[in-house]
Amino acid sequence: MTHASFDLTLIGIGTGNPDHLTEQGARAIRQADLILIPRKGADKADLADLREQIIARVCDRPARIAYFDIPKRRADDGYLRGVEDWHDAIAARWHETIAAADPAPARVALLIWGDPSLYDSSPRIAARLDPRPRVRVVPGITALQALTAAHAIPVNDIGAPFAVTTGRRLREEGWPAGIDTIAVMLDGDCSFRAIDPEGVEIWWGAFLGMEEEILLHGPLQDMAERIVETRARARARHGWIMDIYLMRRRRRG
Amino acid sequence: MTHASFDLTLIGIGTGNPDHLTEQGARAIRQADLILIPRKGADKADLADLREQIIARVCDRPARIAYFDIPKRRADDGYLRGVEDWHDAIAARWHETIAAADPAPARVALLIWGDPSLYDSSPRIAARLDPRPRVRVVPGITALQALTAAHAIPVNDIGAPFAVTTGRRLREEGWPAGIDTIAVMLDGDCSFRAIDPEGVEIWWGAFLGMEEEILLHGPLQDMAERIVETRARARARHGWIMDIYLMRRRRRG
Ligand SMILES: C[S@@+](CC[C@H](N)C(=O)[O-])C[C@H]1O[C@@H](n2cnc3c(N)ncnc32)[C@H](O)[C@@H]1O
Ligand SMILES: C[S@@+](CC[C@H](N)C(=O)[O-])C[C@H]1O[C@@H](n2cnc3c(N)ncnc32)[C@H](O)[C@@H]1O
Repeated sequence: MTHASFDLTLIGIGTGNPDHLTEQGARAIRQADLILIPRKGADKADLADLREQIIARVCDRPARIAYFDIPKRRADDGYLRGVEDWHDAIAARWHETIAAADPAPARVALLIWGDPSLYDSSPRIAARLDPRPRVRVVPGITALQALTAAHAIPVNDIGAPFAVTTGRRLREEGWPAGIDTIAVMLDGDCSFRAIDPEGVEIWWGAFLGMEEEILLHGPLQDMAERIVETRARARARHGWIMDIYLMRRRRRG
Repeated sequence: MTHASFDLTLIGIGTGNPDHLTEQGARAIRQADLILIPRKGADKADLADLREQIIARVCDRPARIAYFDIPKRRADDGYLRGVEDWHDAIAARWHETIAAADPAPARVALLIWGDPSLYDSSPRIAARLDPRPRVRVVPGITALQALTAAHAIPVNDIGAPFAVTTGRRLREEGWPAGIDTIAVMLDGDCSFRAIDPEGVEIWWGAFLGMEEEILLHGPLQDMAERIVETRARARARHGWIMDIYLMRRRRRG
């Protein structure tokens, strides 16, 4: 089945604070004639609400919104294989949802948490659409920026590199060689416990940009247990949690 | 000499496109009762203009602006030492400029290129002020995000880490171990020429978010010379250049 060609704009909306939206993002929302929104799961309903709140705020007249269900992810095929199938399934849902829209939209938009380029699958899913739309990306404030802003710290040491990694990679591969600053995302397991805390400082943040924002900072040695406990309590209270942290190792030599 | 205590807000304004400004940034500009702006150098006057343009756009009434000269940097003391002295000198200028303002401002703001946390000295300079103000940071769209958005690519491979480094570090230390994606900033020397191009893809961008934006992408092998030439020509024409690139190595194994 074919349908009229369209532009697809992936709009980064920042990480919980509606004021993270850029003027470019606001304009892209106003220009869209169809906005796809994932249907609320029971748990993270507040996140779906944020999208609707943002749309209502920047649009003068009611926007045309189409909801889609995010398919379940099958993990039984190995990590990468499972992810690829899942992306195919999401692309199919986007396709159906757009094809069902009448009149056919010329400009479709998706509101993406943070920045669409950072640990987000939307550019990869968009590339699976057939016919392939013209994809535009509007950058948005990332969780890493929300973290460094909240702590008012630079992400890098002067002229020095930094790495961004996931909890899984930190556990499996340890601290990356030759780099003294690392930011860790997608970590459900407090993987900072897997590394030698000697000489390491940590800046941790949860629910960044949101009302529930929590910040902790100090030597990893002193903070590890406290973060684990704070995280568990906040998660129990809230039903879910999103957190991220930056760690810096004392310069050697 | 002491003066009234004040808040200092470092406002990320994005990387050349005035529409990169977030609502949070716009609000912080409106709330400031003194905005410090570095005096235009002859060459990069267009960058100083961008700040004034942004301020004029978000403020209903004329904002109070104070200009300061950026002191010359002495490089003869070794790299880090030179930077530290330079930060001291800039902090002194900020201090003087704020102290000279009458009436004394309660909320001082600085408009920072990109995000104040990324290869920018403003948080470190702010920490040198005495008495120390309460420092607030408003995140802004970085050059790296402008790059990945313009190319509509993810910064990371699925679940994989990436590193951000400088041209100098890339030349001195080569490709970071164990990480297949690196972004390079602050590179006046096309340092991608210093690495083995085999299996490496590059996404390059200059003047991102600006009218002059230039994008190039392809296998490093084929693109290196073309980027060097394009960069030299654009720089000659424009008087200065800002560029950044992302390189991905084919996954080994
Ligand atoms: C799938 S990634 C999406 C990242 C997003 N595209 C961005 O630009 O930040 C989700 C991860 O981002 C981080 N994250 C996102 N929003 C956050 C928030 N408000 N507070 C803390 N961490 C957050 C967490 O590490 C979480 O596991
Ligand atoms: C001193 S750093 C400041 C980075 C800034 N704080 C940010 O968040 O992007 C300057 C470097 O940023 C990159 N850069 C900044 N603006 C850029 C633009 N508009 N286009 C390309 N590169 C840019 C270049 O690599 C440049 O050498």
